[in-house]
Amino acid sequence: MGEPRFERLAIVGVGLIGGAVGLAARKAGVARKVVGYCRRREAAREAVGVGAVEECPESLAQAARGADFVVLATGPDPAARLAAQIAEGLAPGAVATDVAGVKHRVVAECSEAFGRRARFVGSHPLAGSEKRGAAAAAEVKLAGSLCVVTPARATDPEALALVRGFWESLGMRVAELPPEEHDARLARTSHLPHFLSAALAGAIEDRDAPFCAAGFRDVTRLAAGDPGLWTEIAMHNRRSLAAELYRVSRRLHDLADVLTSGEREAVQRFLESGRDRRREIAGEE
Amino acid sequence: MGEPRFERLAIVGVGLIGGAVGLAARKAGVARKVVGYCRRREAAREAVGVGAVEECPESLAQAARGADFVVLATGPDPAARLAAQIAEGLAPGAVATDVAGVKHRVVAECSEAFGRRARFVGSHPLAGSEKRGAAAAAEVKLAGSLCVVTPARATDPEALALVRGFWESLGMRVAELPPEEHDARLARTSHLPHFLSAALAGAIEDRDAPFCAAGFRDVTRLAAGDPGLWTEIAMHNRRSLAAELYRVSRRLHDLADVLTSGEREAVQRFLESGRDRRREIAGEE
Repeated sequence: MGEPRFERLAIVGVGLIGGAVGLAARKAGVARKVVGYCRRREAAREAVGVGAVEECPESLAQAARGADFVVLATGPDPAARLAAQIAEGLAPGAVATDVAGVKHRVVAECSEAFGRRARFVGSHPLAGSEKRGAAAAAEVKLAGSLCVVTPARATDPEALALVRGFWESLGMRVAELPPEEHDARLARTSHLPHFLSAALAGAIEDRDAPFCAAGFRDVTRLAAGDPGLWTEIAMHNRRSLAAELYRVSRRLHDLADVLTSGEREAVQRFLESGRDRRREIAGEE
Repeated sequence: MGEPRFERLAIVGVGLIGGAVGLAARKAGVARKVVGYCRRREAAREAVGVGAVEECPESLAQAARGADFVVLATGPDPAARLAAQIAEGLAPGAVATDVAGVKHRVVAECSEAFGRRARFVGSHPLAGSEKRGAAAAAEVKLAGSLCVVTPARATDPEALALVRGFWESLGMRVAELPPEEHDARLARTSHLPHFLSAALAGAIEDRDAPFCAAGFRDVTRLAAGDPGLWTEIAMHNRRSLAAELYRVSRRLHDLADVLTSGEREAVQRFLESGRDRRREIAGEE
């Protein structure tokens, strides 16, 4: 593994993703010391208990003090506020990143909040589950998954290289997208599926419940995710997500028209196009 | 296991579900002899090869001749035509059922096609996968799953009891619904999810593909299913399915409006309602 690349890695928010980052970073020997911060003491004990971080001090300032690499592993809303709180105590030349599923506002706000105290580069590791908390962190497969790193115009190239290298040292593949481009792509591939899943789950009535089988459970698995977190994501990306929702709403309306008028071939084409895309993207599984 | 309940079980169409029925029926010793029919010889060899049926004669008439219990394990479209072709050769007092995912037309047409030669009772075992063919039949879990049996007004009570008993002997739970009621319920819990899944998969562009992660794959798994079969199902249930599609289309449009106008609490309520329904239906998994 060679020498650790960082002296002190601070993970702010050691939940599902923060916990997975901690476990992988410790295993890879990326930093000499891996510390965390959790608002709730119970979560802090859990984070240390599962080995995601070596320690989880009670105060945020204490956790972040002297860190030369920071991962903000919270939802998109609190990231910048936490960045502002820790900026002053970081080691000189520190680099920071995050894990939020939506990027353009997070990147702008965190970069501003860190100011000259740390060089911020946004990240979005495409891994997770509908579960919460460090106790489930070991189930998250970072290795082999994609991490999208989102440099902006002002991003420091050396910081970008360090952030890329950080994710790569955890076994992740890394892609780069500008923050706005990330949000447009993920609106369709991540945020839209989440809201379709929730729409379907929410449409079910009590008397329907016994007739929900494995297919229904697959489609609605995402709906089990944290509504608070997904509200943050949606509000950060509301223009792109609304555009996707209008588009799919129109598509489903057209399909209903086609069914109503009995156009069998149009129905079959609709299903074939979905099947073909699914195959291209997911293979045969 | 006691004495076999039937002399000769004929499974017409030994694909994924027909194969699963054959495997389970042979294991349970439900019939003295289990035979099948497949249109394609290759499928017939596969069905015998995996042990789903003891034999798979070349002619449909030969397979069904003398059968006292028939399972039509095809899609909804060919069921009645096949019923008409085999009716004459069945044992006196034979009972027949099917496995189609949509019922009202199938029940009416098959009942008419069998006429006085066999007493038909519709069935829909809620089990399966997006795969095809008898080779994958062992993956289908009938035991513990629900089978909806759909008696109509003219259904013979003794035949209903035999069909219920058949599925129960394979370890399935059995519920009864009138055919029209089945189709209204399943429009929402099965047919709608399938079309939402296909709509999502079909909306993805080439440049989006690298950013499709596990959640996307869950939501689009159903889209991998056979477009021909699902076109049949949709056309049999097009009024109910169109009504569900109009409703969810409206719901997604409203959600897009709410996002556009920045109504954060409405977004959160939408997600909470989906999360809560999902929990009630699927538990925590």
